[in-house]
Amino acid sequence: MTGAAGILAPELEDLLAVVAEQAAAAAADVDRNARFPAEAVRALRETGLITAIAPRELGGLGLGLPALVRVAEQLARRCGSTAMIWAMHQTQLACLVRHHPRSAVLPEAVAEGWLIASVTSERGVGGDLRSSRTSLLDGAAGGLTLEKAGTTVSYGADADAYLVTARRSADAQSGSQVAVLVTREQVELEQQGSWDVLGMRGTCSAAFRLRAAFGADQVLPVPFRTVAAATMVPVSHLLWAGVWTGLAAEAVRRAAGAARLRAGTDPAAEVPELGRAHAKLLGLRGQLGAAVQAVEPAYEAGREPTLGLGAQLNALKVAASEGVLEIAQLALQICGMAGFAEHGRHSVARILRDAHSAPLMIGNGRLLAANARTVLLSRGER
Amino acid sequence: MTGAAGILAPELEDLLAVVAEQAAAAAADVDRNARFPAEAVRALRETGLITAIAPRELGGLGLGLPALVRVAEQLARRCGSTAMIWAMHQTQLACLVRHHPRSAVLPEAVAEGWLIASVTSERGVGGDLRSSRTSLLDGAAGGLTLEKAGTTVSYGADADAYLVTARRSADAQSGSQVAVLVTREQVELEQQGSWDVLGMRGTCSAAFRLRAAFGADQVLPVPFRTVAAATMVPVSHLLWAGVWTGLAAEAVRRAAGAARLRAGTDPAAEVPELGRAHAKLLGLRGQLGAAVQAVEPAYEAGREPTLGLGAQLNALKVAASEGVLEIAQLALQICGMAGFAEHGRHSVARILRDAHSAPLMIGNGRLLAANARTVLLSRGER
Amino acid sequence: MTGAAGILAPELEDLLAVVAEQAAAAAADVDRNARFPAEAVRALRETGLITAIAPRELGGLGLGLPALVRVAEQLARRCGSTAMIWAMHQTQLACLVRHHPRSAVLPEAVAEGWLIASVTSERGVGGDLRSSRTSLLDGAAGGLTLEKAGTTVSYGADADAYLVTARRSADAQSGSQVAVLVTREQVELEQQGSWDVLGMRGTCSAAFRLRAAFGADQVLPVPFRTVAAATMVPVSHLLWAGVWTGLAAEAVRRAAGAARLRAGTDPAAEVPELGRAHAKLLGLRGQLGAAVQAVEPAYEAGREPTLGLGAQLNALKVAASEGVLEIAQLALQICGMAGFAEHGRHSVARILRDAHSAPLMIGNGRLLAANARTVLLSRGER
Amino acid sequence: MTGAAGILAPELEDLLAVVAEQAAAAAADVDRNARFPAEAVRALRETGLITAIAPRELGGLGLGLPALVRVAEQLARRCGSTAMIWAMHQTQLACLVRHHPRSAVLPEAVAEGWLIASVTSERGVGGDLRSSRTSLLDGAAGGLTLEKAGTTVSYGADADAYLVTARRSADAQSGSQVAVLVTREQVELEQQGSWDVLGMRGTCSAAFRLRAAFGADQVLPVPFRTVAAATMVPVSHLLWAGVWTGLAAEAVRRAAGAARLRAGTDPAAEVPELGRAHAKLLGLRGQLGAAVQAVEPAYEAGREPTLGLGAQLNALKVAASEGVLEIAQLALQICGMAGFAEHGRHSVARILRDAHSAPLMIGNGRLLAANARTVLLSRGER
Repeated sequence: MTGAAGILAPELEDLLAVVAEQAAAAAADVDRNARFPAEAVRALRETGLITAIAPRELGGLGLGLPALVRVAEQLARRCGSTAMIWAMHQTQLACLVRHHPRSAVLPEAVAEGWLIASVTSERGVGGDLRSSRTSLLDGAAGGLTLEKAGTTVSYGADADAYLVTARRSADAQSGSQVAVLVTREQVELEQQGSWDVLGMRGTCSAAFRLRAAFGADQVLPVPFRTVAAATMVPVSHLLWAGVWTGLAAEAVRRAAGAARLRAGTDPAAEVPELGRAHAKLLGLRGQLGAAVQAVEPAYEAGREPTLGLGAQLNALKVAASEGVLEIAQLALQICGMAGFAEHGRHSVARILRDAHSAPLMIGNGRLLAANARTVLLSRGER
Repeated sequence: MTGAAGILAPELEDLLAVVAEQAAAAAADVDRNARFPAEAVRALRETGLITAIAPRELGGLGLGLPALVRVAEQLARRCGSTAMIWAMHQTQLACLVRHHPRSAVLPEAVAEGWLIASVTSERGVGGDLRSSRTSLLDGAAGGLTLEKAGTTVSYGADADAYLVTARRSADAQSGSQVAVLVTREQVELEQQGSWDVLGMRGTCSAAFRLRAAFGADQVLPVPFRTVAAATMVPVSHLLWAGVWTGLAAEAVRRAAGAARLRAGTDPAAEVPELGRAHAKLLGLRGQLGAAVQAVEPAYEAGREPTLGLGAQLNALKVAASEGVLEIAQLALQICGMAGFAEHGRHSVARILRDAHSAPLMIGNGRLLAANARTVLLSRGER
Repeated sequence: MTGAAGILAPELEDLLAVVAEQAAAAAADVDRNARFPAEAVRALRETGLITAIAPRELGGLGLGLPALVRVAEQLARRCGSTAMIWAMHQTQLACLVRHHPRSAVLPEAVAEGWLIASVTSERGVGGDLRSSRTSLLDGAAGGLTLEKAGTTVSYGADADAYLVTARRSADAQSGSQVAVLVTREQVELEQQGSWDVLGMRGTCSAAFRLRAAFGADQVLPVPFRTVAAATMVPVSHLLWAGVWTGLAAEAVRRAAGAARLRAGTDPAAEVPELGRAHAKLLGLRGQLGAAVQAVEPAYEAGREPTLGLGAQLNALKVAASEGVLEIAQLALQICGMAGFAEHGRHSVARILRDAHSAPLMIGNGRLLAANARTVLLSRGER
Repeated sequence: MTGAAGILAPELEDLLAVVAEQAAAAAADVDRNARFPAEAVRALRETGLITAIAPRELGGLGLGLPALVRVAEQLARRCGSTAMIWAMHQTQLACLVRHHPRSAVLPEAVAEGWLIASVTSERGVGGDLRSSRTSLLDGAAGGLTLEKAGTTVSYGADADAYLVTARRSADAQSGSQVAVLVTREQVELEQQGSWDVLGMRGTCSAAFRLRAAFGADQVLPVPFRTVAAATMVPVSHLLWAGVWTGLAAEAVRRAAGAARLRAGTDPAAEVPELGRAHAKLLGLRGQLGAAVQAVEPAYEAGREPTLGLGAQLNALKVAASEGVLEIAQLALQICGMAGFAEHGRHSVARILRDAHSAPLMIGNGRLLAANARTVLLSRGER
């Protein structure tokens, strides 16, 4: 049931274990109260894992994709919300370090371990990342301003900075977007409604209205479409898949424990669902590992993935988000009432609730439709 | 929709294309008449692809696992039966070259491109590869004899040699097996019943009663359990998965063609099933590629895979056999009546019929149960 | 595994048994050669079952919906093609007797047991029953003519009459349709292409170009939309579901036989798939029975079903067409190689091939989309 | 989306509406705090619906199975826990009125609207209803005692009486069971652990250790196997299926609302999942209605259902428990983040959590295995 152990240096495994323990200790309380996992994020900061994706020369850990996926998996086994916050933050941080390496705030962001939220969702665009209603506006003293109604701003209340998308200008098309990194003190935040949801409750992903005034040099100097294609989509899909694989692995581990307990009293007890759940986990791991390998060369070179690679990433997102849910449900069947319980060593309730969020993060239907279009366009057969 | 192009040297791709064309030309007739694909097998012999898995020093092509999987895929796109015969034969050949390299018949077998069938199934053992009823018996002049009722002996009537499993001796346990390679002229074959089946009709896998008299040096000098674990299971699972992936890829290609045709008249036509089928194919490819990579080190070193690797191979077999069936059914939905037809460029009928054999080749339930036992035994958590 | 035995009078059960036996005797040959099941249709004529749906006062058997569904099921257990031909013919006959009871040809059609095909499909309308390109044209001597390219005209070459849809006149909208019953001698038929397909091969549903000249009184005196809503859709959906349930029941019977055989040698053998397949069959039977009951009052009164009833019929079509396929695949898993064989008492190959046609007969996606619209429109909540 | 409206007399619909409103008002609080829905149970008492299943001559409402199923559905739409408590209580009450009509406590139980819990589960019997470890023991003054460790005693802390199973005597086989109705003051209850679980949180189904001293005339005068077969299994399976259908119907209603909202802004928005969810609901309703009809004659006559009917009830339990989960998940997909929220009119979170309990209430695997055995035994073919 192990993931790719051996990918992280032993000292990193130790640091990871420290964070995981903090995350585990607070996980039940975080979930119950739908509160920010402050303890675990503090540990991420103290161990440096909060800047895992930033290159060493900028003060980060400089981890590659396989190592990052491993971290996502291991965190998720203990606290899905912590893992997802970490994964989202790495994505935003990667956008910054790769597409705006000369950003004036970057040194401080890395040194202080700023937690960066994203404000890419927006009321009225129907969940389309690549479309904005809000736009940059001229502000005082050559600066800029924007105002945006974000529908799900994960850890919005607890972030130190925000990566916000907007149309380049008031007369730009909805798809002519830029991204800008604004700091906590540059924004006025107004939470809209609460975050009392089924799972991933610690991500505190409420709606927020955000007003910001900032300098023009805080706008990332490449179009957001480049940022999204070259960094945001690949990193988020791979790390999300890592998080979901970790949840799935933990569900299988708990199911195996429950099955072992039962087998102790009845050695002939057949547990076909366990073989099924485990096989699905292995398939998911295989697909995730293959996607990491396929994406790595383009990612390391800073290139946008090809259409084919993009389709592979979409397929991974769909498969992993559905896979974790199937595996968690099989685990529930195996664990029975012990799995249905919210607590105890064979509980899979929180894992299952967290897993239900996976198919909703960018609708799978949208991704499959995009892939169908890619296939229809690629006439060449090989 | 391409598989791992670039894995084969260009001249091998050319040879492969020659065989594939022969296979394609005869495929409909082979299927209709449930007859041996003699043309394609002749082309395999002429191109040398029939000894693809044998090392160069023995006169083979010395292809590694990734290249072999590529060949299986490409053959399957044109004729599933040819691909499956080739895959099974490679498995048997690999057992011979790896576990009996000093076999007296090996040089001739490679030089002449012998086609090797396996007689591992047996009436009365319930499909358990690792269990035999028949046993070796003393024959004339220090030789040995055996008589075996094989339940499915693929291309039994057209093989040049047979890899037969049996108990080591009349008083051995059912699991104390050896394998022996007997030649066509050393056996008496009696076909039992016909091979008029749903799909993979060209494999001609009827039941056969086989009587053989042979020399003691034809018995592979290691226990069959070693042969099975180190070679037969890994090679067959990987190459079968390659065959099924090829069938699936061809189904997706045909579905894309049908969808394109329809989109021509109605550009807004949504084909969500196409995105789904393609995503499943990408997932299958990812899982297969990851399994090849995971198995390669042990395979190249001649070691038996670990329990964990064995579980991964079982998981691959289950996923690929179910995946090809799902993909073929999605393709049928997309292609509609054109897919339901037995002929035409958007037909998926034969692919679907061939795919239905996949879950039956070693029952998936048996493999999942084995995996469940592996999980129950592996207490270590990582 | 029985269906609703007891619904038919004993003498009808006897007649049905006679036909079923004829159908069974020819089924393999009909399937192999994709030829019309002439023997079974002759037996339908001789027993009077060919006019089962026609009221007694017109010379028919006057069977109600439950009895008709029973006949469909029982025929399908022996020969899917015969059952489907019978079901389609009953549908056409019901349209005639219910919507054109004064038709001049009706007495002869019933007395002679005419087999009535439908020409509702048409090239260029994308499978939409309620849309026609062809239209009625004025012919010689006050008569009418039409010419139509039907894409799938089941038993077109062997029918005695044809129920053809067309636009009412050359300047009518595509949805302003009528139906007309033309006789064999009034038409010129030209088969387009062959019918060499995966399953339901005996229905001989090739494409046909049909030219007809006929009297104006042969046009059904109500709009086709009424015929379709009040009779064609409900009768076809219920009888198709009957056919598929029969195929499913036969698959379960064969799987039970195979499982019993295995249990004979190993009494502890678990067959979870058998419980699953049987439970699905029971569910399908329940849903079918409930739909028959729900539709009966409107049907007997000659009224069009409500939107809600229409949605229930669509849901039945989708569930039964997917259910029979699932059940047949479970049966194949249980029967193993004996099920994969095209012949033998545990063969499920032909059942499975026939079942693959079910989701394609009016695409399920189209029906579910129609239901979604119905739900969106029905604001009333209870 | 309505169920079988019209089955209840209008005045009963009104009473039902009163209870449903109470249940709805408290549902969120009941769920959040995993507390007993006291308000709703009070309303059940005040309206008389608490004795719905008791015959009129005993002071009950005398409702038949179709009406009872309707009540279960309607309650479940507002509060799953209330509906499940009501369904379980009706089951226990039915056992009492049908198998011990002369019970001395029965008049008071009906008149006061006692809530009856069941203590049928027991530690150490692996979830097998028909097997007990505990047994009746001789007590003081000709009375009896028992002590039992129940693993899930729904509303154990809030019940007025308990239907407890036990072996008839200390030397009886584990399957030689009786049932006894003991009153609250006759028992000592000790709760073991808490009830903090994924869903159906208001049922408060903790483990309880129960000690009771009671009169010999409180033992039901027929073997428990008769009680179980003739009453407990049929009533519970039908009413549970009613509860789950109600949850499913509510999920579809909410999904339709969300889809309508979206369609308002984008009228061309396709919602294929809505058609799918609705079709599944209709199928479930059909199967449930058919099962009610099939069971009614035997139930009304007080006979045990045949093996075939038992299999149909098991199939219903499996289909309904899996169906509600599928439908709830489709609804979540349709509602997106609004569905993921724990509150709001398009929330499906609680429904989904409640639905996850359905497959666990008597394991589906156990029921399918029982059905497989029934099929293997029933050699008659029709």
